[in-house]
Amino acid sequence: MSLLVIGTVAFDAIETPFGKTDKIVGGAATYAGLAASYFCDQVKIVAVVGDDFPQSEIDDLNKHHIDTEGLQVKQGEKSFFWSGKYHNDMNSRDTLVTELNVLGDFDPIIPESYQDCEFLMLGNLTPQVQQTVIKRLKNRPKLIVMDTMNFWMDIAMGDLLETIKLIDVLTINDSEARQLSGEFSLVKAAKKILGMGPKYLIIKKGEHGALLFADGLIFSAPALPLADVFDPTGAGDSFAGGFIGYLAKVGTVNFNNMKNAIIYGSALASFCVEKFGTEKLRNLTEQEIAARVQEFVSLSKFEII
Amino acid sequence: MSLLVIGTVAFDAIETPFGKTDKIVGGAATYAGLAASYFCDQVKIVAVVGDDFPQSEIDDLNKHHIDTEGLQVKQGEKSFFWSGKYHNDMNSRDTLVTELNVLGDFDPIIPESYQDCEFLMLGNLTPQVQQTVIKRLKNRPKLIVMDTMNFWMDIAMGDLLETIKLIDVLTINDSEARQLSGEFSLVKAAKKILGMGPKYLIIKKGEHGALLFADGLIFSAPALPLADVFDPTGAGDSFAGGFIGYLAKVGTVNFNNMKNAIIYGSALASFCVEKFGTEKLRNLTEQEIAARVQEFVSLSKFEII
Repeated sequence: MSLLVIGTVAFDAIETPFGKTDKIVGGAATYAGLAASYFCDQVKIVAVVGDDFPQSEIDDLNKHHIDTEGLQVKQGEKSFFWSGKYHNDMNSRDTLVTELNVLGDFDPIIPESYQDCEFLMLGNLTPQVQQTVIKRLKNRPKLIVMDTMNFWMDIAMGDLLETIKLIDVLTINDSEARQLSGEFSLVKAAKKILGMGPKYLIIKKGEHGALLFADGLIFSAPALPLADVFDPTGAGDSFAGGFIGYLAKVGTVNFNNMKNAIIYGSALASFCVEKFGTEKLRNLTEQEIAARVQEFVSLSKFEII
Repeated sequence: MSLLVIGTVAFDAIETPFGKTDKIVGGAATYAGLAASYFCDQVKIVAVVGDDFPQSEIDDLNKHHIDTEGLQVKQGEKSFFWSGKYHNDMNSRDTLVTELNVLGDFDPIIPESYQDCEFLMLGNLTPQVQQTVIKRLKNRPKLIVMDTMNFWMDIAMGDLLETIKLIDVLTINDSEARQLSGEFSLVKAAKKILGMGPKYLIIKKGEHGALLFADGLIFSAPALPLADVFDPTGAGDSFAGGFIGYLAKVGTVNFNNMKNAIIYGSALASFCVEKFGTEKLRNLTEQEIAARVQEFVSLSKFEII
């Protein structure tokens, strides 16, 4: 089934204890789109870049069967740019530069050919832009997944609450779940958040895995313990892309398929962090993904007699 | 099979956001012994208390089939006392009072009737006392599990390294694993620590579950997401007691049985935190434990087709 991904397509400059990059291609829609492309051959992107964005990068997305008709290229303007430096623990980072550029007045235009999309991934953006996308779709998608972050809770909580009323799955991390709900216990936090609109809540816990909450049900997914995390940038977006891409592939939305989708999403995120930027995500094989998923199976399987 | 537990039997005074206790019975050997008693009917304790320790509490341990022949009662002396206050997040705490009392010169005397024990749990104590116990056993137990903490890494690293050479399973938390190994990645930390002597390493991550490492194998166990954590005191000891108690019951030590033992240990820890002190651990039924273990199964099970 077809999947519409909205989010940033942008430049990042990243510094980690392992090295440093110049401007490389990043952005939520790039990571999520690439991750989803391994499951779904009808990924369609809505995003905006400036005329500094190389055509070769767009060609590369197209090679992954990602439709870029909805990628606006603004002449005379510059692409969104983020630069950050990760600390030694790789769990915290400082933002060095944020240049909104084309993102400042981003109007998400949905091409007519995208209108029949059954799955919608709202990558991290202003809640108002995310909401506009939902409203511009003539038919409500079968499943709407939304990613957001603490920044929007700080400056646009009203818009955020309006938007999450309209979605099916919210993905946030544990401290964001606590901030959004005002509850420390994640069980209580999830109950409150599920009362705000979404039918499913995914709490991402980085190296500690992820929790899926739905009405009365909980699934705990492990994270793969890794010897080296090279660059955490894009891990959450790769997770989201793998997650919704897998669901778009199987077509049926239920708790069991969501559990598997979380494992596939986690597998894609585990690949993402092994190299700088999107490098690893561009060159995966089905066999590698299947083998990685089997590592998750071995990691968490036990049999109580 | 029989299980020898060494550790503290003591008084605690605990303050959490949910309330406050006067002096109540605590201590690593108390928690671990009680937790193990649900699996193993031959739990034997080596510990020391003062004459302020109520006989009724000893009787209660005996009612759980815990052998207290090795529990020394020092006349004219006072039991070890610890008092602490948990912060709102329940993950951090301040120690308010530590009175070593009888623990200051604790000489772990092993009764002759304990000499045939096949399983040994070394609860958190000075590494030197832990080592003395191993040396005083005429036959090496089939399995030696040792718990320790950052405090001994700070002040007695040499003794600690000597002692962990002699054991089979080390249980520590994630920050202790990083401190002991000097590695941030838990995969690298585990590799180094397994090179120091133990065949198995269990890294306890509290609300994020636990990881089991052995030669080339990793198991990730979930923690049960709880709506209310009432009092975290003793959770680690209950985990260790449930873990080794289950292994003493099944008798065979291998990676698969260890995985299940971690689930049973986690189940006992999840009960422990539901009430103050040892209250919940004293009144469990087999049915409750079996139902709790099934919650862990549902929580983590997925099937990739």
